[in-house]
Amino acid sequence: MAIEEVVQSYNQYVKKIMDFNESIALAEWDMRTGAPKKGIKQRSEVVGTLSDEVFKRSISDEMKGYIDALTDPSIQDQLSLVTKKMIEKSKKTYDQYVNIPPEESKAFVILQSEAQSVWQEAKEKSDFALLKPYLEKMVAFKRKFIEYWGVKTNKYDALLDLYEPGLTVQTIDQVFGKLREGLIPLVEAVTSSKAQPQKDFLSVPFPVEKQKALCLHLLREIGYDFEAGRLDETEHPFEITLNPGDVRVTTNFQEQDFISTVLGTIHEGGHALYEQHISRDLVGTPLCEGTSMGIHESQSLFFENFIGRSKAFWAFHYDELKRYGSGQFDHVSLDDFYRAINVSHPSMIRTLADELTYPLHIMVRYDIEKALFNGDLEVTDLSGVWNEKMKEYLGITPANDREGVLQDIHWPGGDFGYFPSYALGYVYAAQFRHVMTRDIPDFDNHVSSGNLSVVTDWLSKHVHQFGSLKKPLEILTDTTGEGPNPQYLLNYLSGKYSDIYRL
Amino acid sequence: MAIEEVVQSYNQYVKKIMDFNESIALAEWDMRTGAPKKGIKQRSEVVGTLSDEVFKRSISDEMKGYIDALTDPSIQDQLSLVTKKMIEKSKKTYDQYVNIPPEESKAFVILQSEAQSVWQEAKEKSDFALLKPYLEKMVAFKRKFIEYWGVKTNKYDALLDLYEPGLTVQTIDQVFGKLREGLIPLVEAVTSSKAQPQKDFLSVPFPVEKQKALCLHLLREIGYDFEAGRLDETEHPFEITLNPGDVRVTTNFQEQDFISTVLGTIHEGGHALYEQHISRDLVGTPLCEGTSMGIHESQSLFFENFIGRSKAFWAFHYDELKRYGSGQFDHVSLDDFYRAINVSHPSMIRTLADELTYPLHIMVRYDIEKALFNGDLEVTDLSGVWNEKMKEYLGITPANDREGVLQDIHWPGGDFGYFPSYALGYVYAAQFRHVMTRDIPDFDNHVSSGNLSVVTDWLSKHVHQFGSLKKPLEILTDTTGEGPNPQYLLNYLSGKYSDIYRL
Repeated sequence: MAIEEVVQSYNQYVKKIMDFNESIALAEWDMRTGAPKKGIKQRSEVVGTLSDEVFKRSISDEMKGYIDALTDPSIQDQLSLVTKKMIEKSKKTYDQYVNIPPEESKAFVILQSEAQSVWQEAKEKSDFALLKPYLEKMVAFKRKFIEYWGVKTNKYDALLDLYEPGLTVQTIDQVFGKLREGLIPLVEAVTSSKAQPQKDFLSVPFPVEKQKALCLHLLREIGYDFEAGRLDETEHPFEITLNPGDVRVTTNFQEQDFISTVLGTIHEGGHALYEQHISRDLVGTPLCEGTSMGIHESQSLFFENFIGRSKAFWAFHYDELKRYGSGQFDHVSLDDFYRAINVSHPSMIRTLADELTYPLHIMVRYDIEKALFNGDLEVTDLSGVWNEKMKEYLGITPANDREGVLQDIHWPGGDFGYFPSYALGYVYAAQFRHVMTRDIPDFDNHVSSGNLSVVTDWLSKHVHQFGSLKKPLEILTDTTGEGPNPQYLLNYLSGKYSDIYRL
Repeated sequence: MAIEEVVQSYNQYVKKIMDFNESIALAEWDMRTGAPKKGIKQRSEVVGTLSDEVFKRSISDEMKGYIDALTDPSIQDQLSLVTKKMIEKSKKTYDQYVNIPPEESKAFVILQSEAQSVWQEAKEKSDFALLKPYLEKMVAFKRKFIEYWGVKTNKYDALLDLYEPGLTVQTIDQVFGKLREGLIPLVEAVTSSKAQPQKDFLSVPFPVEKQKALCLHLLREIGYDFEAGRLDETEHPFEITLNPGDVRVTTNFQEQDFISTVLGTIHEGGHALYEQHISRDLVGTPLCEGTSMGIHESQSLFFENFIGRSKAFWAFHYDELKRYGSGQFDHVSLDDFYRAINVSHPSMIRTLADELTYPLHIMVRYDIEKALFNGDLEVTDLSGVWNEKMKEYLGITPANDREGVLQDIHWPGGDFGYFPSYALGYVYAAQFRHVMTRDIPDFDNHVSSGNLSVVTDWLSKHVHQFGSLKKPLEILTDTTGEGPNPQYLLNYLSGKYSDIYRL
C-alpha cells in the first residue's frame, strides 16, 4: 500500500475511535446534568461497552500496523506534521495500555470505582482507616504499572507524564521551590495585615435567576460561543467537550455566594474557549483536545483570576452587576468590591482556597505523591505527613482527615500525578500574561473598556488553535521564550496583594 | 460449545448492539432538544459510525452463527421463550439487511437524507415537481428491496410487516373498509349539525410557564415516572427511549393553543408509559421495546383520546385547570369545555385533525401506498390521486400540494407502510377500552375520581410488560379474544359525537 493510502486508512480508523469518544462524552454530560436516576445503571453499561471498544481499537493489531508503518524513519519526509503528531499520540496511548496485562487493567478499573465509593463514606465519617486499604492497593497498582512501562529513573516522572507530558520532578522541584519561597512570606504578610477588606455584602442573597442571567452575559463577554456550547446547572461545575462545535459548561448557583458562581463560571468558560478555538482541521484526530492538564488550567485560571478577579474587568462590569443585584452594592465602591473578591487567608480546603494560597495546597500534594512513588513514604503515613506539610506551608493544621487528607477525590480515583498541573497551569498563565501585556501595551485599557477579544484572540493565536499539535513546553517556550518560570506569578501576586492589603 | 454457552455468548453479543443503540438514541435526543448547532455536523458523523457498527454486527458471520445454532429445530426445547423470541427478532433483522447489497443500502440512506431536505423546500414552495424525482427513486429502491426479500404475493405486505408485523392488506382492507363505512356518514352528520360547540375560550393566551407546570402535573397524574424520564421542549413533540429507566418526552408550548399542548403531552406520555413498564428482564435484548408502531400508537391514543378528551378526566381536573388558567374558564361549564376540546370538522392536515376525522386521513395514504407497490399507481400521479381521495373520504379538496400530498415527512424519509399503524393503533385502543370497561365496571368513576392507576395497571398487565415478547396480533387476541375489529371504535365515536353534536 502506498504511504498515502496507509495514512488515509489510519485517519479513518482513528476517526471512529474519536466518534466513540464523543459518544462517551455525551453520555457522561447527560449523566451529570439531567439523566433520570433509574436509567443510570444501564447507561453506565453503555459507557463500559463504548470504552471497551475504544480500548480494544487503541491496542489492536491494526493500530500496531499503522504505528509500525508510520513511524518508519525512511518515510518520515512523506508525512505531514499533523500525521506525525497523530501517530506519536497513538503510539503513546498504545505503549501505555499494551504493556499492562488486561486482567490487571480490569482489576484497576474496578478498584477505582470501589475506592471512590469508599472515599465518599470515609470522608463523611472523617475516617482515613476506611480508605487506607484501597489506597494501598491503588498505589501498589500504580507502582507496578510504572515497572511495566520500564521507567528506571525518577518513577514519579512516569505519572507526571500522563497529565503534563515533558514535565519532570527535576523541573517541578525548582519551580515549586522558588514559588514557595516567595509565597510563604507574602501569605504571612497578608494574614497579619491590619487592612483586612470587608466582604459581608457578597453574601447578601442573590436570586438564582439573576445569577443565571449574569453568568450567561459574562460568558458571552469573554467570548464563549453559545452556538457551539450551552450552560447547565450541576453540583460541581465542569467543562466537557463533545467536539469543537459543542463545548459545554456547567455551574452551581449559590444564592449566598454569587461571586463563587460567577468566578467558577468564568473558570469553566476559560477551559471552553480553549476547546472552542481548536483548529477545525484537527477534528476527528486525537490532537483535537487541549494539550495537557496544565495548559488547560492556564486558560481557565487566566480568565478566572487575571480577568475575573481584576479591577479592570469590574471597572467595566460593576454597573451591570449592580443592575443584576438588589441594591447590596449601591454603597460599595468599585475598589471595595475588588478588595472583597480578593480576600486571602490560609484555609484547609483546596477547592475553596483563594488565588494566593492555592499553589501551597498543591505543593503539599506534590511532595506526598513524589515521596510515595520514589519509595520514601507509605500510605499508612499519609495523614500525618499531610498535616505536617499544611503546618509548614500554610501555617494551619487540619482538625480532622475530612478537612485534610480525605478532601480530594483524585487519589481514590487513581489520579496520581494530576495535582501539579493545577499549579503549573497557574505559573504558565502568569507567563502568558507577562508576554501578552508586553504585546498589548494598553492591555488594562482594553479590559476596562470591555474589549476582551484582544485577550481571547491572543490566547487563540498562541495557545488554543494548536490543540495537542504542540506539547505543553513547546507552547510555553514558543510563546514566552522560556520554560516554566514562577517569577511572573510571584510578581503578579506580590504586586496585587501588596496593593489590596496595603503592605 | 454447550447450548447454554452459545445462549450466553449470544446474549452478550446482542447486549452490545443494544448499548450502541442506546447511545444513538441519546445522540438523537440531544440533537433534537438542545445540542448547539455548530456541533451537529460532527455529531451526525458519530451517529453514522455507531449505526454502521450496529448494522455490521446485525449481519456479521458471528450473528449468522448464533442464528443457525439457535434456530436448529433439535434444540428448541432447551431454549427459554425469551431466547426463542430474541433469536426470531435477530433473524428478522438479519434477513431484512443481509439480502440488500451494501452499496444500495448506502445509496438509500443518502437518498433519505437528500429527499427529506428537498421535501422541506418543496413543501415551503408547495411544488411537488421538486420532490418528484426523489420520491421516484425512493419508490424504486423500495420496490427493489421487496424483490430482494423475495416477496411474491401482495408486495405492500412486505412494507406493512416492517411496522406492524403480521398485518396484511387483506386484513387492513376489511378493517379500514368497515371503519370508513361507519365514519363517513358520522362525519357528515357532525359537519351539518346545528349544535356546533363554542371554543373561543381555548385560545385565550395561557402563559408558557403555567402550561409547563400543568403538563408536568398531568404527566404525573397518568403515572409517568419522572425518576425514569424527563420533559423537554421541542418544536415537534416526541417520545424517545434510552432504556426503560430513561424514557424521555418532549412537548411544544403554544400560548394560544394550550389544549393541543396538553393533549400532545398526554399522547407522548402514553407512549412513554408503555416503555417505562416493559419488564426489566428484557433490558439488553432486542425485545425491550414496544412490539409495533400500531400497539405503540394504541397506548398514546388511549391516553390522548379516551382519557385526555373524556368528560370523566376533566370532571376531576377541571378545577385544577381553572387554577392554572387566568380566568378564561370561570364562566365555562365542564360540559361546554368538554364539547370545545372535541370539536370536529374535516380539515387538510393530518397532524391537526381531530379524533373523528383522523382515520380518514390515514386511509387516503393507505390506498395510495398500496397502489404504488402493487403496480397500480406511479409517483407522477400522486398529487392528483391524493386530492381525489380527500374529496371522496373527507369531502374537501386541498388548494395546493403543501396542504395536500407534501404535508408529511414519511415518504421523503422512505417510510412507506408506516401510516396504517396510526389508524390500526386507534382501532386496537378502542378494543382495549371495550375489554377494560368490562373488566373494570366502574371505569368512569375511577377516572372521574382521579384514580388513573387502574387504567395504567390494566394496560401494563395486558400490553406494556411484554415489550416485543408478543407480536401485535398476539397481544390483541390474548387480551380481547379477537383480531382487529373496528366496531368498538365506531361505537365509541358514534356514541361520543352523537352526544356532543346532539345528533
